[in-house]
Amino acid sequence: MEARGRNTDKTRRMVLDAAAKVVGTQGAGASVDTIARHAGVSKGGVLHHFKSRDQMLLALAEDLIEQFRAAVHAAIDPHDNAPGRLVRGYVNATFDELVSGDGNSEFAVLVATLFSVPGVDELLRQDSRRWADAFDADGLHPQRARLIMHAADGASIAGLYGGGDLASLEQSRQLLLALSRQDGPLIAP
Amino acid sequence: MEARGRNTDKTRRMVLDAAAKVVGTQGAGASVDTIARHAGVSKGGVLHHFKSRDQMLLALAEDLIEQFRAAVHAAIDPHDNAPGRLVRGYVNATFDELVSGDGNSEFAVLVATLFSVPGVDELLRQDSRRWADAFDADGLHPQRARLIMHAADGASIAGLYGGGDLASLEQSRQLLLALSRQDGPLIAP
Repeated sequence: MEARGRNTDKTRRMVLDAAAKVVGTQGAGASVDTIARHAGVSKGGVLHHFKSRDQMLLALAEDLIEQFRAAVHAAIDPHDNAPGRLVRGYVNATFDELVSGDGNSEFAVLVATLFSVPGVDELLRQDSRRWADAFDADGLHPQRARLIMHAADGASIAGLYGGGDLASLEQSRQLLLALSRQDGPLIAP
Repeated sequence: MEARGRNTDKTRRMVLDAAAKVVGTQGAGASVDTIARHAGVSKGGVLHHFKSRDQMLLALAEDLIEQFRAAVHAAIDPHDNAPGRLVRGYVNATFDELVSGDGNSEFAVLVATLFSVPGVDELLRQDSRRWADAFDADGLHPQRARLIMHAADGASIAGLYGGGDLASLEQSRQLLLALSRQDGPLIAP
């Protein structure tokens, strides 16, 4: 049973990785057939795991959300115990992915395609609430934390289609990190 | 000739409006046939104007970019002559569209679909450079102007999928407007 569980997890992982690759290059036209072929799994095997193409894409969206969450936590400096450490992890994880530049346009197509999958909007709303709660617990003034998160998100869209060069991306990162090391509202209410 | 020019412009406008509607509801699966039917134009007529489906979608992306540019300029307060007036127009145009809430999810699908059309990335890069130049001429410290623009863009993604409620969108708008009424770098370099 344990071996079977491991194989199931491994198949699931292979299908999600193949789906990310195929959807990132082919967009909404990516078929279950092509994804199955890339994963080295039968179409029936894919559908056994995910029931339908939309369910597979929904699982992929969930997986990407979790991967980003893990990247943020991995980017937190373990010696950083000041308020805003999670905000700094969020900023660094966002910009690390952008400046690596690897597969940015594939990632843009992938995200754009997943955006129109039924249920993904609800996943994003839940994720947005989870980040808001986590930032509240991070100790920085909420107005400041929200501004930094929105600015990191906005810079990352520009970065995805190559709208910002590396130097200006790096400037944006440093500005957001510096803003997270001060505290209080940016404007008195 | 003049009448013919007007008819040509009118047909083009009808096709682009129909394309925005159909792509916003059907995503990448939207066919030229369906768009032509919605526009009340023959498929041949659509292809006469735009040569190919991709050319039509590229023209639609260009049209949306121009519409947003026009909305920003329309949102500038004519009595506002202080540095940052264009930044304030950008912020207000962005949030006006979001809080109207009308067709946000259609708009999200439309933008996501256009993102993967060949040539749209280059349009966005050009647009990004035009905004950067326009903000430079707007008189606010460039670091401040860029942060406000990125934060407005980031808030607008959250708003598109309903990640921010109306009250928090309005708070974000007021914060960004207030930041544009002060000047200088947000953090000393």
